[in-house]
Amino acid sequence: MYRTHTCGELTLGDSGKKVTLAGWVQRSRDLGGMTFIDLRDRYGITQLVFNMETDPDLCQKARKLGREFVVQAEGIVAERSNKNLKIPTGEIEIIVERIDVLNTSDTPPFTIEENTDGGDELRMKYRYLDLRRQNVRSNIILRHKMAQEVRRYLDGQGFIEVETPVLIKSTPEGARDFVVPSRIHNGEFYALPQSPQTFKQLLMVAGFDKYFQIVKCFRDEDLRADRQPEFTQIDCEMSYIHQDDILNMFEGLARHLFLEVKGLVFEGPFPRIPYDEAMSLYGTDKPDIRFDMRITELTKAVKGLGFALFDDAPYVGAISAPGCAGWSRKQIDELTEFVRRPQIGGKGLVWARVEADGSVKSSVDKYYTADDLANIALMTGSDAGDLILIMAGPGEKTLSALGELRLEMARRLGLRDSSVYAPLWVVDFPLLEWDDETQRYYAKHHPFTAPKPEDIKYMETDPGRVHANAYDLVINGTEIGGGSIRIHDPETQSLMFRTLGFTAEEAQKQFGFLLNAFRYGAPPHGGIAFGFDRWTAIMGGSDTIRDFIAFPKNNQARDVMIDTPSTIKQEQLDELALDIRKKAQQE
Amino acid sequence: MYRTHTCGELTLGDSGKKVTLAGWVQRSRDLGGMTFIDLRDRYGITQLVFNMETDPDLCQKARKLGREFVVQAEGIVAERSNKNLKIPTGEIEIIVERIDVLNTSDTPPFTIEENTDGGDELRMKYRYLDLRRQNVRSNIILRHKMAQEVRRYLDGQGFIEVETPVLIKSTPEGARDFVVPSRIHNGEFYALPQSPQTFKQLLMVAGFDKYFQIVKCFRDEDLRADRQPEFTQIDCEMSYIHQDDILNMFEGLARHLFLEVKGLVFEGPFPRIPYDEAMSLYGTDKPDIRFDMRITELTKAVKGLGFALFDDAPYVGAISAPGCAGWSRKQIDELTEFVRRPQIGGKGLVWARVEADGSVKSSVDKYYTADDLANIALMTGSDAGDLILIMAGPGEKTLSALGELRLEMARRLGLRDSSVYAPLWVVDFPLLEWDDETQRYYAKHHPFTAPKPEDIKYMETDPGRVHANAYDLVINGTEIGGGSIRIHDPETQSLMFRTLGFTAEEAQKQFGFLLNAFRYGAPPHGGIAFGFDRWTAIMGGSDTIRDFIAFPKNNQARDVMIDTPSTIKQEQLDELALDIRKKAQQE
Repeated sequence: MYRTHTCGELTLGDSGKKVTLAGWVQRSRDLGGMTFIDLRDRYGITQLVFNMETDPDLCQKARKLGREFVVQAEGIVAERSNKNLKIPTGEIEIIVERIDVLNTSDTPPFTIEENTDGGDELRMKYRYLDLRRQNVRSNIILRHKMAQEVRRYLDGQGFIEVETPVLIKSTPEGARDFVVPSRIHNGEFYALPQSPQTFKQLLMVAGFDKYFQIVKCFRDEDLRADRQPEFTQIDCEMSYIHQDDILNMFEGLARHLFLEVKGLVFEGPFPRIPYDEAMSLYGTDKPDIRFDMRITELTKAVKGLGFALFDDAPYVGAISAPGCAGWSRKQIDELTEFVRRPQIGGKGLVWARVEADGSVKSSVDKYYTADDLANIALMTGSDAGDLILIMAGPGEKTLSALGELRLEMARRLGLRDSSVYAPLWVVDFPLLEWDDETQRYYAKHHPFTAPKPEDIKYMETDPGRVHANAYDLVINGTEIGGGSIRIHDPETQSLMFRTLGFTAEEAQKQFGFLLNAFRYGAPPHGGIAFGFDRWTAIMGGSDTIRDFIAFPKNNQARDVMIDTPSTIKQEQLDELALDIRKKAQQE
Repeated sequence: MYRTHTCGELTLGDSGKKVTLAGWVQRSRDLGGMTFIDLRDRYGITQLVFNMETDPDLCQKARKLGREFVVQAEGIVAERSNKNLKIPTGEIEIIVERIDVLNTSDTPPFTIEENTDGGDELRMKYRYLDLRRQNVRSNIILRHKMAQEVRRYLDGQGFIEVETPVLIKSTPEGARDFVVPSRIHNGEFYALPQSPQTFKQLLMVAGFDKYFQIVKCFRDEDLRADRQPEFTQIDCEMSYIHQDDILNMFEGLARHLFLEVKGLVFEGPFPRIPYDEAMSLYGTDKPDIRFDMRITELTKAVKGLGFALFDDAPYVGAISAPGCAGWSRKQIDELTEFVRRPQIGGKGLVWARVEADGSVKSSVDKYYTADDLANIALMTGSDAGDLILIMAGPGEKTLSALGELRLEMARRLGLRDSSVYAPLWVVDFPLLEWDDETQRYYAKHHPFTAPKPEDIKYMETDPGRVHANAYDLVINGTEIGGGSIRIHDPETQSLMFRTLGFTAEEAQKQFGFLLNAFRYGAPPHGGIAFGFDRWTAIMGGSDTIRDFIAFPKNNQARDVMIDTPSTIKQEQLDELALDIRKKAQQE
């Protein structure tokens, strides 16, 4: 070893010890006759001190060290006169007796500090330097800790980690696959998995009983902000279980992670909110329940009183923002602008405020009596000082806009504290989704998701009404994971395919492989998959998954550090028997 | 849950309990008035019993259950009259009161037994049924256990698990890359990593200090038996260390795995054998030291005595097989045939045997005196009853052939017991390998491997003589892993490139990316990578990695279960702007 200790472990108890440290020069200061160097490694920072009087040569040598030089220093641990109590090593320093430069460094293109002067592009290009910054490094260490604790919990619960293949087969449905041309079988391709869904179900058929994997998955999507073409899933499946068994098992995983990673304990079970309720109370299937401000439907209460906007609307709903009655015209105008953004799609905003005396003032006073308005205040549970925000329009769209407004109000009121965690289960998702364009139902989850037994009777008469044994884990308004109980009997599976408009032949062609396996004694089973990047980001108090991936790609699916994708040699194309179309090359 | 207990846990202590089990029908027997069913799950087998007298309907129902039907059975735990002490549940049975068929099964294409009647192709096609067999399942469970223990050890030693990207850049040197066409950047490609070598070195530059990952790697090679296009590595790197630190750390990992997975403890450190010694004593850089029978060089001792074969040979060497003096002519002929196989490449075999009275008889008696032969016996350490096998020819080739003969003799003598483990380190590999065809030196490991400091002086004058700080872990004659200390200073790196015949421009073009990173303060570092499939197979007492991979590919790189690689849709090719050459399609 080049060191006896790390830069993060020496304290007053080590005073007088002769030690050797190795690390990077974080900072260097000359104060009259003394030179101080902050030496940094993964574990912390330790101050090195050089005295011009006692050893001028050594001190001169120290003064020549540049930022990010790699050095090895030997010396004696001593108490500091000027203590820094913010860091564990802040009470000591090393009186250096020998220092060797292990490597020099060019001046880094940005400062290696928590608040760096480097822009996003530059930091990504020099990601290996960006990763030296303490905050970025601690994100990656958090991810490591999450991964170990996920495995510790699941291993302890009898799950078997099985690696499923990466070179698999392209499937026609779903998102776009990345494909890999075969050299041995020219003209044929592998595909990279979007998820190990098929394989984990096969492992249940194989009798593995409880499976998990922390696994890279791939989706060739048009990239939106903070999507990655390769991402990591915690993928799990269990046999001989009902929905409750899965929710309990993985609520246990979430509790384990909160405890081990954040030191947090949650009293009582996580709330379980049916999908329909989540939509009507929060306007979303991933409600942020760190705060209340639920949506109240007012449709019946406000209709027929002469205000055309409400009279004509299929749906009217409101949220009540506590203590916001005093908001200015300008502030309310900002909210109106917010809901009118194209991505929110609201027409406008009606407000009503509950005055200190309990009376209600509103922007539509002329249409509604004091009693009408008092009734609205009552329905929305508003007290003196609260601001009621009302929207009208088509049900689904208006609920969604109210949901967005609810989040925006919470943001403005500081109710979305990233150190507060509010996990919940959303359950009873619809089994099917109607698509107007193709005029057919699609599986909301996938075609192997089991309908709720009590809803099977509607499968042929009213498919939209059928709910599924499908569930999502939501934390702070973000979907962390989701899954379902799978269909394991051939009759229900046939019914499902009929409902989706597949002939038996089509079903066989697309899913034949799994259907064949199911003929050999598939057990009842179900599972869940979590977005590991996302979950880690949330645990790190961030929305940005890229900060929790060591070497992420940018929004163009490009790794700017290694400059990929890139062209390959003609020999490689020849071996694969592939030609790149000229038109594309010229683009 | 569909069960109160698994099929592997009920014992006499549970007698009288009412339980519910779920699993697969392994076997069913009708004995007069009784029907017995072996119910199987991942955890074991439990006997269900049905009595025609007490409940004829239930018994009739049980008799109709086919092999691999999935059933749920409720009943009372009772002591068996006819105990099976080979399995933990063999002292009890369940007197069934209710049985439900959860799923039926077609007759499986082969028997789900340890010794199945299914051939290799068939079992691979129905791998999900093959995985139901207890021996195959326990291989995969062993792999799970290995993976958890690898992580437990390395996490405990302060290693951080970091996921490196799968979509990386194609590199010109080394084995062939699998490539992934980019849809967003037409004409450009990602490549799948052959190893995370570059990224782990970057993580050291980034200050991660100790990194590991259990990671899929990809190599598009022409497949030899038991090679897989995708395979799994335990990939590790450390900073501020010397070679000894790495060997000690990973010897610790090996000891941890042997203890936790096999219950084995090794006294004393693993032997560390220099490469040159391994080659001269065992004829290979991966010696199997479960047995002795080392090679003795006889070149000087046998020359100049008139036997042309030896006189003309650059090298003569021998092994001495204990207790084989009595081997028949036929047996020795078999050995001669063995060494003459093209893959061994020996010309023939000379033998000498030490008789009970200490005299030596040999196939070349006419050229050598009794004293000459006695001397050979002495040199090879042979005692009465031993058989000396001598080969002659070019040094390297003959040593290699003697090495193979040594393994073959051990096989015949039953000295290669797969339940015995003999780990060792081979160290001090040559830094460079001369290639006759291209008339240049190549890096034996990779161009970032550090030469041994004491050999740097030969770098320009006699490069073949330079040894590296490179090492392999070998168990039972199989290389389990290997690594090296890396070059971290620019001067040694330039020297290395000059020795490999690279101009500065060429070096920059091929390795510029890593060289740039090294300019910003690279710490001294080194690492190792283990073949996880191979190591698991060895721990499972097998040579065949395919048996330890849940869903392997065949020797044509094809997954016969999901039938991939396969053709993709024209739309997919269009989006990628790729054309498949017609000639290739017709092949």
